[in-house]
Amino acid sequence: MHVNIVYVHVKPERVDQFLDATMENAHESVKEPGNLRFDVLQMRDDHARFMLYEAYESTEDAVAHKGTPHYMRWRDAVADWMAEPRQGVLYNGHIPDEQEELDF
Amino acid sequence: MHVNIVYVHVKPERVDQFLDATMENAHESVKEPGNLRFDVLQMRDDHARFMLYEAYESTEDAVAHKGTPHYMRWRDAVADWMAEPRQGVLYNGHIPDEQEELDF
Repeated sequence: MHVNIVYVHVKPERVDQFLDATMENAHESVKEPGNLRFDVLQMRDDHARFMLYEAYESTEDAVAHKGTPHYMRWRDAVADWMAEPRQGVLYNGHIPDEQEELDF
Repeated sequence: MHVNIVYVHVKPERVDQFLDATMENAHESVKEPGNLRFDVLQMRDDHARFMLYEAYESTEDAVAHKGTPHYMRWRDAVADWMAEPRQGVLYNGHIPDEQEELDF
């Protein structure tokens, strides 16, 4: 499983707009082929810091996400709302795997 | 949704043992009341670094996890395998929420 953890630090005055745009993106992203997770998390101690948890069955599925209209709309919308460049960290997921996802 | 992101840096020679013990813990943890996620992720560029993604419907459910036999067994087993103390960061999850989990 291909996991991209994206850390986003948003300008304080843009937090609500960022959350709205990100939820819209997430609701479309979970419908993509191979998507296993697209979770939107907001840090409890600093509401301007978000973590997006994007999990796909394969690297190809994750790459295809970057070509979707909803991703490109999100990317353009949030570009000026960041307090600093967002950072992604790649992980291999041991859980969930495809079989477990079917059992969920 | 209550999310605890736990970052673990494991001694290189203990990576396989850590993964085995953590998978065992995870397979029991997903059966707990209120558990939504217990994902085990290994950093692609450094296999000694793990991220555990623990999501529960409520704070109470997350606290109860710490009292389970499988958690305590895992905690004791891995204690000497860490290269440095593990760190937890708390998040509020906007996705998934309980309704979406039911639709999953």
